[in-house]
Amino acid sequence: MFFPHKEIHALLSNIKIVLVETTHPGNIGAVARAMKNMKMHNLWLVSPKIFPSADATSRASGADDILARASVCRYLQEAIADCQLIIGASARCRTISWPELTPRECAEKVMISEPGNNVAIVFGRENSGLKNHELDLCRYLLRIPCNSEYSSLNLAAAVQVVCYELFIASGLQEQASIGDKGETPLATAAQMESFYTHLYRALTDIGFMHPDKSNSIMRRLRRIYNRVQLDTKELDILRGILRMSQGEGRKRKH
Amino acid sequence: MFFPHKEIHALLSNIKIVLVETTHPGNIGAVARAMKNMKMHNLWLVSPKIFPSADATSRASGADDILARASVCRYLQEAIADCQLIIGASARCRTISWPELTPRECAEKVMISEPGNNVAIVFGRENSGLKNHELDLCRYLLRIPCNSEYSSLNLAAAVQVVCYELFIASGLQEQASIGDKGETPLATAAQMESFYTHLYRALTDIGFMHPDKSNSIMRRLRRIYNRVQLDTKELDILRGILRMSQGEGRKRKH
Repeated sequence: MFFPHKEIHALLSNIKIVLVETTHPGNIGAVARAMKNMKMHNLWLVSPKIFPSADATSRASGADDILARASVCRYLQEAIADCQLIIGASARCRTISWPELTPRECAEKVMISEPGNNVAIVFGRENSGLKNHELDLCRYLLRIPCNSEYSSLNLAAAVQVVCYELFIASGLQEQASIGDKGETPLATAAQMESFYTHLYRALTDIGFMHPDKSNSIMRRLRRIYNRVQLDTKELDILRGILRMSQGEGRKRKH
Repeated sequence: MFFPHKEIHALLSNIKIVLVETTHPGNIGAVARAMKNMKMHNLWLVSPKIFPSADATSRASGADDILARASVCRYLQEAIADCQLIIGASARCRTISWPELTPRECAEKVMISEPGNNVAIVFGRENSGLKNHELDLCRYLLRIPCNSEYSSLNLAAAVQVVCYELFIASGLQEQASIGDKGETPLATAAQMESFYTHLYRALTDIGFMHPDKSNSIMRRLRRIYNRVQLDTKELDILRGILRMSQGEGRKRKH
């Protein structure tokens, strides 16, 4: 599902990333960078241990505008007060079974929620995550699939994965990446046939072709060059090579 | 459909994460952690600026076994020598249009490659990424979709996203898609290098190579043959053709 540019931006703008009692300011900076990479900018900090901090700014590495605009508050309730959809990240297995989402499912949920809705995705402390009374405020629990024997992602790495899925889901992938307009056209089937004829002649000229094996050799070569899907410039180069090998061959015979 | 535990592990075991000339040892540690979170452990370091390092160990945060087992080498060629599928990460737009993959497409490609194949995913320097001569060794370029106005992910964040997609894909991959064992093995990077050396010599022998254009011609030819992913039987045929064109050339001169 692809949204027009303006709406996508609005969509990602409605999502808050909320960090609860982060201990290391470097992690806050790294989270800001991860968010900005994925076109998100709404950062809330609930009782951070140290903020602002030079460590945070340094790790933000150009995303310090996110830090400068970050909202700091004392309790999670304040950060999520205006939100309709609240999702809490957790690495731990909980005894109470909560409705769980993977990052991909979380991104889908967010994208299909009402356009005007505010969304909060809440990440807990580096060592102990979110407490049960904080999860009580969340509608879903977000769990990143990972190695069950080593399951604790770095805070910023977890935010990166979640924001990446949100960005993908928002469909904001720039069309530019699909390839520039000036690209060389692919060779047509007729051009390829003419190449294979040329190839056959050149291989005969250099003495590579034995009449009894030529069919199976040509079949194998076709398999290679059909697979690669040559563009016309590449075809020109290969035909240039064939001409040179033949040209010399012809001189040889005379 | 999920693989039994052992097979998934084997699948992810065949994937190397290769870091080229990493400047900050902390990033190496964070990469180790990101890998272990996603059940990957095969880390290669090409000319790291500082390694081992207390910074790396501290940021690895329990993934120091990955660091202890990391292979360090001088050139990218050594790290990928036994690999059949080489994918290079890049944030920059390149002038030559390279076949590009998103992390999700990359994970799919890796999962459908032959079970015994070795895969390398190569990440460049923090500031400048991979150089063109390094990308020449890669079959695909991996690009993480992101904010076009702020596109440089932290190294470990990029590795985290890619390993996350690999982990997800390894769990989703259907067993049926695995090819039969009787198939011809794909050429390794070392075999391809030896082919390119042979190709260069043959093109020089037939008079195709002009010293001032040879670099750009070789780059284009590499692009073609890296793209096609030759198996060893196909490589034999192509080298047979090169030998014939050279052999005749040599006779001519005497």
